[in-house]
Amino acid sequence: MKIAWNQEGLIPVIAQDYHSREVLMLAWMNEEALQATFKSGFATYFSRSRQKLWQKGEQSGNQQKVVEVRLDCDGDTLLLLVEQKGGIACHTGRRTCFYRAWKNAGWQIVEPVLKDPAELYSQ
Amino acid sequence: MKIAWNQEGLIPVIAQDYHSREVLMLAWMNEEALQATFKSGFATYFSRSRQKLWQKGEQSGNQQKVVEVRLDCDGDTLLLLVEQKGGIACHTGRRTCFYRAWKNAGWQIVEPVLKDPAELYSQ
Repeated sequence: MKIAWNQEGLIPVIAQDYHSREVLMLAWMNEEALQATFKSGFATYFSRSRQKLWQKGEQSGNQQKVVEVRLDCDGDTLLLLVEQKGGIACHTGRRTCFYRAWKNAGWQIVEPVLKDPAELYSQ
Repeated sequence: MKIAWNQEGLIPVIAQDYHSREVLMLAWMNEEALQATFKSGFATYFSRSRQKLWQKGEQSGNQQKVVEVRLDCDGDTLLLLVEQKGGIACHTGRRTCFYRAWKNAGWQIVEPVLKDPAELYSQ
């Protein structure tokens, strides 16, 4: 089985908390990011906006230690089971990036901010 | 918060089992698919290969009843918490599409086939 990189050479990657099974975020990898992830043991993504590799948590310290890497049936999506350092995956200071739920015909915030983002990115 | 559809008018959608918290699959929606999902209560995706809407399980009967819809911080990924009918999300007859794990420098199949695909799609 080979990875089916998309036209830009990327693949979407779902990060899931290994312990709580919470889905934390979706990001993208190119082949270099995947190799860096395997080599370091920590999730490394490709930033589409900045067009460069980015080790998750490199600024905030909230790294993702990779426990298992899975590939789907079509070979075009990866799933990482991770230990989320600090218990915060989102740059807003929440546990997960999926903190809005559709309720009463609108997106409602349903997850608390655990740490002020200003504090997360102050170092 | 508005959904940030990509250049093709699509958004990636992660389906997660509401009960087991297993990540089942990743598919795509356009706005019409999302509206059909809200209206029917069952996950409806947009097939990029066939360029049309597709209600998950329309052939196999393995529909996904939507319990909750979540949106991420950037507004560019959806997460569906679903009740997976038949306990099979993958067209290969497995519980999840993420049935390959990276081990010993290769992708190893780590989830059993629960139902023969020929039987799943025989009707």
